[in-house]
Amino acid sequence: MTEFIDALHTFFKADKYVEASNIKIEEVNEEEAVIVADIDERHLNANGCVQGGMLYTIADFAFAVLGNYLHPSTVTQTGQITYLRPAFTKRLKAVAKEKERAGHCTVCETVVYDENDKVLCVCSFNGFIKEITKQEFIERVNKR
Amino acid sequence: MTEFIDALHTFFKADKYVEASNIKIEEVNEEEAVIVADIDERHLNANGCVQGGMLYTIADFAFAVLGNYLHPSTVTQTGQITYLRPAFTKRLKAVAKEKERAGHCTVCETVVYDENDKVLCVCSFNGFIKEITKQEFIERVNKR
Amino acid sequence: MTEFIDALHTFFKADKYVEASNIKIEEVNEEEAVIVADIDERHLNANGCVQGGMLYTIADFAFAVLGNYLHPSTVTQTGQITYLRPAFTKRLKAVAKEKERAGHCTVCETVVYDENDKVLCVCSFNGFIKEITKQEFIERVNKR
Amino acid sequence: MTEFIDALHTFFKADKYVEASNIKIEEVNEEEAVIVADIDERHLNANGCVQGGMLYTIADFAFAVLGNYLHPSTVTQTGQITYLRPAFTKRLKAVAKEKERAGHCTVCETVVYDENDKVLCVCSFNGFIKEITKQEFIERVNKR
Repeated sequence: MTEFIDALHTFFKADKYVEASNIKIEEVNEEEAVIVADIDERHLNANGCVQGGMLYTIADFAFAVLGNYLHPSTVTQTGQITYLRPAFTKRLKAVAKEKERAGHCTVCETVVYDENDKVLCVCSFNGFIKEITKQEFIERVNKR
Repeated sequence: MTEFIDALHTFFKADKYVEASNIKIEEVNEEEAVIVADIDERHLNANGCVQGGMLYTIADFAFAVLGNYLHPSTVTQTGQITYLRPAFTKRLKAVAKEKERAGHCTVCETVVYDENDKVLCVCSFNGFIKEITKQEFIERVNKR
Repeated sequence: MTEFIDALHTFFKADKYVEASNIKIEEVNEEEAVIVADIDERHLNANGCVQGGMLYTIADFAFAVLGNYLHPSTVTQTGQITYLRPAFTKRLKAVAKEKERAGHCTVCETVVYDENDKVLCVCSFNGFIKEITKQEFIERVNKR
Repeated sequence: MTEFIDALHTFFKADKYVEASNIKIEEVNEEEAVIVADIDERHLNANGCVQGGMLYTIADFAFAVLGNYLHPSTVTQTGQITYLRPAFTKRLKAVAKEKERAGHCTVCETVVYDENDKVLCVCSFNGFIKEITKQEFIERVNKR
């Protein structure tokens, strides 16, 4: 299992847009993925709060990490985000939880929080699962 | 009108996440907003195609530019994106069109295309309109 | 509070489409609304399982009951439903829970279950809250 | 082709929820499906306008008819509806158009209009295509 988690981290370290957005995996387990980002000027919109694309990006990444942890490999088919408050914050935390999986389909919910644990966004993601074993996932990542 | 368009461009130039993502306004008029981005390594995900968050960010920005052009000022309430193909491309183009406006609510559709005008994503955005005049918008931008 | 709950039930009894669809309120409290329907031939689609519109209707009604219980009066702005399995079942149960409320906006999740508590659909609703007091709600219903 | 259209109509006549909701196919062709419903008391919500579930049901049915016409057989994976105005009307018309198809996935937009062609709802549907030939579709329907 440690080998699979390592491969998962190695795989997602290759995501350049996530890296450029300063987004980091804090935790992933059977229950949830927790993803964080320290906010600086690069993340802001014209009103000086965190840009909507950044909020979506961290939410979708939380889904990607959880989905690929639970059933490699999973790709996003549809994402939906609702913005509830302007994101004036020094730090974002996105928590993804799976609601249900059926066949090739998984549905997850991601909630994005500000530094005070206020909910900024509620998101729903549908993923398509191209089922491979954890061993196959490890081999693919190592072959790169 | 030129003064309003200038103010709109000035306003959106202050969007740092859009700037960091190399996203640019190509055109905005009564019919549509056309937004483009030349793709380089910073935009890629772990599979080497354009990251889902980047695709959402350009789509949402197209909505924001059109929405604020048609009825300043407009903020995104809900965004939905469906991914149809992996985005292996050197260039993105996002085209936003308004479907309907009623009261404080506007619904727009954004389609994201690759360099060959193949559809990559179809998106739907709901915006909340805090109605201000174009003159007020200009004054706010100039006051910054 | 009993008077408000009574008014809520009286109000929703006037919903003819819900009545024609055999949809009934089982429970509503601070945590959730639970809505049920016994299925018969009228609910079926051309494949002999519960029609997608019926599944949406019970989910949206669960949101409406919860939303109006928590903060009268609430109307649906946007609904999203993901279908996970064909709905071959004698009974539906829809459970709505609020994820977050901010200002005039509420976001709820509704899950629709079959007779064996298998998840059929996961739904997300955004509502607009035209805030009135519970007393005003009671008076409006009594005036009808 | 006439035989296929006949089979399509026969197939959808077996949809009991659509029948109970007084929803009828007006037209289906390569460009669009047009679905109509004359409104009476059975369709109304507690406020006396057309119930949200009915509006979704006609929109989803327009998608189903178009999807199955263009590429039998198509089932809804995800539906999203935005309500723009209260539906005080004697007649509904839902028009579905395909935005894009890629592989097993189709994305359609349905707009629901009132009797004066005012937009009531804008909807987006994602369908999964289990590809069969039109001849196979005809045979399946005839076998029932």
